[in-house]
Amino acid sequence: MSIALPCLQETVSEITEELRGRTDRGEVATYIPELARVDSASFGIAVVDGSGQVAVGGDADVPFSIQSISKVFTLTLALGMAGDRLWQRVGREPSGSRFNSIIQLENERGIPRNPFINAGAIAVTDLILSGHQPREALGEILRFMQFLADDPTIKIDAAVAASELRTGHRNSALAHYMKSFGVLDNPVDHTLGVYFHHCAIAMSCRQLAMASRFLAHLGRNPATGFSVVQPERARRINAVMLTCGHYDGSGDFAYRVGLPGKSGVGGGILAIAPGKASITVWSPGLDESGNSRLGRIALEMLAKRLDLSIFGV
Amino acid sequence: MSIALPCLQETVSEITEELRGRTDRGEVATYIPELARVDSASFGIAVVDGSGQVAVGGDADVPFSIQSISKVFTLTLALGMAGDRLWQRVGREPSGSRFNSIIQLENERGIPRNPFINAGAIAVTDLILSGHQPREALGEILRFMQFLADDPTIKIDAAVAASELRTGHRNSALAHYMKSFGVLDNPVDHTLGVYFHHCAIAMSCRQLAMASRFLAHLGRNPATGFSVVQPERARRINAVMLTCGHYDGSGDFAYRVGLPGKSGVGGGILAIAPGKASITVWSPGLDESGNSRLGRIALEMLAKRLDLSIFGV
Amino acid sequence: MSIALPCLQETVSEITEELRGRTDRGEVATYIPELARVDSASFGIAVVDGSGQVAVGGDADVPFSIQSISKVFTLTLALGMAGDRLWQRVGREPSGSRFNSIIQLENERGIPRNPFINAGAIAVTDLILSGHQPREALGEILRFMQFLADDPTIKIDAAVAASELRTGHRNSALAHYMKSFGVLDNPVDHTLGVYFHHCAIAMSCRQLAMASRFLAHLGRNPATGFSVVQPERARRINAVMLTCGHYDGSGDFAYRVGLPGKSGVGGGILAIAPGKASITVWSPGLDESGNSRLGRIALEMLAKRLDLSIFGV
Amino acid sequence: MSIALPCLQETVSEITEELRGRTDRGEVATYIPELARVDSASFGIAVVDGSGQVAVGGDADVPFSIQSISKVFTLTLALGMAGDRLWQRVGREPSGSRFNSIIQLENERGIPRNPFINAGAIAVTDLILSGHQPREALGEILRFMQFLADDPTIKIDAAVAASELRTGHRNSALAHYMKSFGVLDNPVDHTLGVYFHHCAIAMSCRQLAMASRFLAHLGRNPATGFSVVQPERARRINAVMLTCGHYDGSGDFAYRVGLPGKSGVGGGILAIAPGKASITVWSPGLDESGNSRLGRIALEMLAKRLDLSIFGV
Repeated sequence: MSIALPCLQETVSEITEELRGRTDRGEVATYIPELARVDSASFGIAVVDGSGQVAVGGDADVPFSIQSISKVFTLTLALGMAGDRLWQRVGREPSGSRFNSIIQLENERGIPRNPFINAGAIAVTDLILSGHQPREALGEILRFMQFLADDPTIKIDAAVAASELRTGHRNSALAHYMKSFGVLDNPVDHTLGVYFHHCAIAMSCRQLAMASRFLAHLGRNPATGFSVVQPERARRINAVMLTCGHYDGSGDFAYRVGLPGKSGVGGGILAIAPGKASITVWSPGLDESGNSRLGRIALEMLAKRLDLSIFGV
Repeated sequence: MSIALPCLQETVSEITEELRGRTDRGEVATYIPELARVDSASFGIAVVDGSGQVAVGGDADVPFSIQSISKVFTLTLALGMAGDRLWQRVGREPSGSRFNSIIQLENERGIPRNPFINAGAIAVTDLILSGHQPREALGEILRFMQFLADDPTIKIDAAVAASELRTGHRNSALAHYMKSFGVLDNPVDHTLGVYFHHCAIAMSCRQLAMASRFLAHLGRNPATGFSVVQPERARRINAVMLTCGHYDGSGDFAYRVGLPGKSGVGGGILAIAPGKASITVWSPGLDESGNSRLGRIALEMLAKRLDLSIFGV
Repeated sequence: MSIALPCLQETVSEITEELRGRTDRGEVATYIPELARVDSASFGIAVVDGSGQVAVGGDADVPFSIQSISKVFTLTLALGMAGDRLWQRVGREPSGSRFNSIIQLENERGIPRNPFINAGAIAVTDLILSGHQPREALGEILRFMQFLADDPTIKIDAAVAASELRTGHRNSALAHYMKSFGVLDNPVDHTLGVYFHHCAIAMSCRQLAMASRFLAHLGRNPATGFSVVQPERARRINAVMLTCGHYDGSGDFAYRVGLPGKSGVGGGILAIAPGKASITVWSPGLDESGNSRLGRIALEMLAKRLDLSIFGV
Repeated sequence: MSIALPCLQETVSEITEELRGRTDRGEVATYIPELARVDSASFGIAVVDGSGQVAVGGDADVPFSIQSISKVFTLTLALGMAGDRLWQRVGREPSGSRFNSIIQLENERGIPRNPFINAGAIAVTDLILSGHQPREALGEILRFMQFLADDPTIKIDAAVAASELRTGHRNSALAHYMKSFGVLDNPVDHTLGVYFHHCAIAMSCRQLAMASRFLAHLGRNPATGFSVVQPERARRINAVMLTCGHYDGSGDFAYRVGLPGKSGVGGGILAIAPGKASITVWSPGLDESGNSRLGRIALEMLAKRLDLSIFGV
């Protein structure tokens, strides 16, 4: 479990070299005005293996808006607080729909299909919030990220959060809709406030790869041996990432990359090679499913060259 | 890759012992009259590892109707014939719907969401049929199964096929619907005839576990070293099984069992532990998603006790 | 009830004159190859009032394929045979969907939303067929049309029927789908055979306007006083025409024309001015909802100039 | 146009007598807590004909919450302000869905199917609001009602409005959803505030029947001759009521009653007999489509006995 991946930095450097110059990068997300200002030429990658080896390439230390990648960590936190009771509020089946679809909610009495579509992540946020002030819940989420990444400098980009609060009508619709079915416990504006803020956490590839080590190593931080979650729970979070991590592009990601992963519209993708490594790539241009275009390609190359696929070794 | 799994037969025997007596078995499928006649108390399990070790329990040598499990093998065959062109006819995303839903077809111009829902498997069958007589295509599919399992006695249960032909109006609807969009090339009754017959192949747990060894071992038969498909293709078929293999219960199966798998309404489930083993369980009672109830539980126990999950080791 | 409409022929002649030359006629239906051969410049109109006055314009005596207009007459016939029992097989709500949508069927256990979408008309045809040979049922439908129009020369266009049989996969899908829910009693190919043939009846504007006099006059033929249906039933058929007669363009037709009506993809539209007149227009070019473009405009002009709207006099 | 309906008061009294004692009244709406407090045994009816004759029965002078019946008047007002430009924001097709469905919005880029489902009425309210403060817009709506009914005592029930503001999450979801597509111009809370308040207007059967005289008489108040809207517009509002006035029960209402109508969850139904009378009935118990159960039956009896159906006279 703690053997170093061979040729890791060389491979990461090669891929960075091959991809940095590519111009077919897709479109930067514009629906949150603040996100549209990012430099579309950015490209970063970071891989942390079980031996503690860290390989980086490109803009691996530039913070970006993690957006939906935060859903992996809020799910982890909420499972720790609510246990399997969480699954009464949210399903764990792929939705076959876009990240912000509301149709499925109407057909299934307000229960979101999984914790990685927006509605599901809002329901998970509501569970974390339960009985607390938004500021407290948000502090807890942020401290959890800092703890996992072992980096107290991680912070929330207030401008991005404010931008989402102003323009996030679709997410407001999802929240009010679930509230009408009794799926949310807290005032809608409290839950949305926390949701928009945790999506606005800014982290670098390196920080994200560090923060997600526990998912690659049966719930433990391999550096300290400290257990974040039970092995079973780490496996299960990986399973949900694999089936649901990329909205209506989840099947294609599994097919091409073969790793559990979670993308965000900020252009980041987190991927886990169980027993081997935690990986983050970042390139702001998105494909038509809303996932980082070069990010997915980088992961496909990395998985192939390092033989990381979970579907055959 | 060829190390024998330790304690394999003991574990299989234990699980068989624990599950055989359970009475919460779900309901046997009744929509094909012929399937309803099967003995609901049947329970079988077979595991083949990379060293050639075979462990069996219960009714592991009793043939049953493989039904949708055949879709894994027709996909393999069609990919060999048509290559990636196949993906113009059928997607590879989870559908979020029941096995026989037609809604998705209307919304996506007749292109089935993946090859493991009924519509997708009919489209795959149509590709195999292309330019041949139904009898020839069916012969090819059957010989492929016999070759993979190394067992020339495998055959089609004509009574089951006839029963489906008489009562399969929902599948006829799917086929005519795709035909209206030009997604099928052959006459609808030819394509459906082949489809109903390959679903009616009868195999035992042992035969199915043998036939699917190539999926656990990068496309090769580990006994002979003979390559059935390229490693990349084996990985990808496993990926599609993981995301789409259990209809609207795919996410739950990945979450609980953590292995690529494919179920059939005959009560069989095929599961693949990449690099380790191919597995088949059989118990005719189904849960509400149409997957074998005890079968899923047996796989959950087996994956846990032998540490087979692809999501963390 | 039997007062002659003033200025009827003049108005009809004026409208014919104004519309014949228009070139914005929409597209002739091509999905049935045989229909695509019709002369797109055709334009006919016929109005029969309660006094027996008949006003015609253009190609009012040229037979065309009545297509879905036949659904009004099969509904009338089936209500006579099955009475209100018919409404257990088919609803009477607007569908909000295209004429050949299958989505609604899946959501409502195979019960078509109303008798004027294709699925509903197929279910109605199945009721008429019950216990008879297709040839007999078809003979009954044809004789009913001849009787209503008082014209024994009306016949079925065999080439159109054959064309539909060959290409009607979408309708086959609808029929098999309903059969899978037990909504059809007869063999699917029998029901579809009768359905395709009654859609292929060829009639002129004059013949259709004559045949539908009973709907304008409380169920009676005003010339003979003979009662075809009870007054209540005539009203109710008109109500279903108003809410459901033009698929997903029904609301717009009611808004613009203000009369119960039923369109067919052959370019005909039947409209009823209760207490006043039965009307048929024909122009083969269709709008995006599949309704005759000039036909709708002609009816809008006619309703306005003769003050026929049911929504305010 | 101004002939008095014969036997009007006798018929109204008979129907009141026959229905008052019935116990199969359906369920009073409970989703707005304030509405649930109404006396379920209430029953009122009022009919105003073109001669100025007013016939009443039961609780015809007890004010009730008009709820969705207000949508008829806001549509009238908005058409006066925006003309046909209104139809760029909202369609006029039956939705085939429940009053508060959001599915259709997702499939049609946020454009509500018609002005009588909740989303459509919210969009219409947003048009009325344009460029004004909520208080001003609301004042305008209220004064319009008072003017039409010739009764300055009509007012808004503040307790009902407050109850809706607190619990109307489903309507909030619809509004935010449309806002995300740019279909609403004003701040969501402004638009919803006006919407909830005009739904909370309290009126009696008599007041509503008086206020809607213009719809029965080509846009004019028959008492004063004053024109509220053009004849064409009155006809068209009636047409939209007929096809869309009762959500997914519109077809059934047209079939049974044969009059344009609009129901509200407060148990009121407004119906128009063009050229003859404006009618309001009130009974708080609702059927499964959310329409007053006894109200619909009363209208069916009235239309039959006075021969009011628009579908055959």
